[in-house]
Amino acid sequence: MTEEAPRAGRRAPEAVAIVGVGLIGGSFALALRALGFVGKIVGVSSPEAVRVAIERGVIDEALPLGEAAAMADLIYLARPIEGILAVLNELDQYVRPGTLVTDAGSTKSAICARAAEKIQRGRFVGGHPMAGKEARGADFAEASLFHGRPYILTSGCDELERLITGFGARIVRMPAEEHDALDALTSHLPQLISTALAASIGTEPEAARVAGPAAMDLTRLALSPYEIWRDIFATNATNIDQALGVFIGKLEELRGELRSPGIEREFENAAAVARALRAGAR
Amino acid sequence: MTEEAPRAGRRAPEAVAIVGVGLIGGSFALALRALGFVGKIVGVSSPEAVRVAIERGVIDEALPLGEAAAMADLIYLARPIEGILAVLNELDQYVRPGTLVTDAGSTKSAICARAAEKIQRGRFVGGHPMAGKEARGADFAEASLFHGRPYILTSGCDELERLITGFGARIVRMPAEEHDALDALTSHLPQLISTALAASIGTEPEAARVAGPAAMDLTRLALSPYEIWRDIFATNATNIDQALGVFIGKLEELRGELRSPGIEREFENAAAVARALRAGAR
Repeated sequence: MTEEAPRAGRRAPEAVAIVGVGLIGGSFALALRALGFVGKIVGVSSPEAVRVAIERGVIDEALPLGEAAAMADLIYLARPIEGILAVLNELDQYVRPGTLVTDAGSTKSAICARAAEKIQRGRFVGGHPMAGKEARGADFAEASLFHGRPYILTSGCDELERLITGFGARIVRMPAEEHDALDALTSHLPQLISTALAASIGTEPEAARVAGPAAMDLTRLALSPYEIWRDIFATNATNIDQALGVFIGKLEELRGELRSPGIEREFENAAAVARALRAGAR
Repeated sequence: MTEEAPRAGRRAPEAVAIVGVGLIGGSFALALRALGFVGKIVGVSSPEAVRVAIERGVIDEALPLGEAAAMADLIYLARPIEGILAVLNELDQYVRPGTLVTDAGSTKSAICARAAEKIQRGRFVGGHPMAGKEARGADFAEASLFHGRPYILTSGCDELERLITGFGARIVRMPAEEHDALDALTSHLPQLISTALAASIGTEPEAARVAGPAAMDLTRLALSPYEIWRDIFATNATNIDQALGVFIGKLEELRGELRSPGIEREFENAAAVARALRAGAR
């Protein structure tokens, strides 16, 4: 027998705790299983979420945070942002030294700052999978949710990157501040636009009679429940305000050119960006 | 034999001329066939569009406008708006008295005004099917394109309404001016929003790396070629400017409330509008 070559990075996890077993946390668990993970997956969640998750085979059992954290060598925080911030306040006392802690929060600066302050025994890596769907909860979790989507990590981490690459996601390493500025443009601004468009259409009671595919497409995000957005606005308002400023500026430019041939070039430039987004997503 | 009961309205058409055999004109022809229409369908279009349309069996033959109009008892104008306006200038001299002329132009006021002035022998009814897809041309025409979609008519017309109802579309009778104001909100505004969002995202070269489903959904319209929009802006700029004003006002309201609890109610109201749009579309 030849001696086994030393492996780069740390070992794959043997027990995983998912804190917040909803769509994202549940999908992370299912993606791990699909990747061949045979260790224990423990959930920390509300009684109702736990019931659904166990019924669907998403987690093996549910435990309180302290017990789950003590047995895990990978802890995945998938609550809403304020929930993640609250967990970070108390988590470190429970974890074994060196335990990998990562999260799926929609903004990263506040969470990474809190983790830097509170997580000492564990190793924290901020994360944000750019995936989701309209339906929520572990009922709708699926192993392929991350496939083909960007997955942002705020720092390098071999063993986490192996998992995420295994899910078929595209890893993007990016500092928390840059993530939050870019997501303000690509995610938080679209939400506000959709909400404002629905509100605008709502000013004309007859509009529903003529609404076609364009109105349907652009008001879909307006169906999102506010509770998801409260924490995002609370932790990224400055970037969002700036993104709104850029967008309103572009819209006023178009407004000023409605009857001018110059608007053709604006359309061409915007179409080129839209095509580049799609090329980047491949 | 009992005497045949007198039929309401006029007879179904026996020969149809489609002026502009693209996605919409071609789909109208296919939908007619699917409805059991066995008469002749003549196309008036560019040599390339005619070739595609004949190859796909969308039209039986191609003729110049004058000859096609002279043999048809239903004339369907499916060019871009300026093309429809140009045809209306010369069409009337060719049509037989009483021939039904309708159109599929995206704005209605300019077209209906031109038709009122120019169409004397024919009977004109303005129309706008709220249907479409990203691909263009008779290659992508399909009999089901109008199914489940609103189809606006600017005046009542039994024999046309029988056909459109037969296509599975939902007829909406509405004066041209009201159509144009509502479409500015539900169709033209979404296009400008999508173009402005793509332009905003284009200000950050790294944004494509993190763009998720929201950015993709809301920049899809930005891929639309400008040539479709030139005529819409030229014929509906006042309404579009007003819709932009309403929308920017709503967006500024949200911007001012990013950190305020009041934004929750804005989200709830907008979600209710988005749900009502979907209920209306059923």
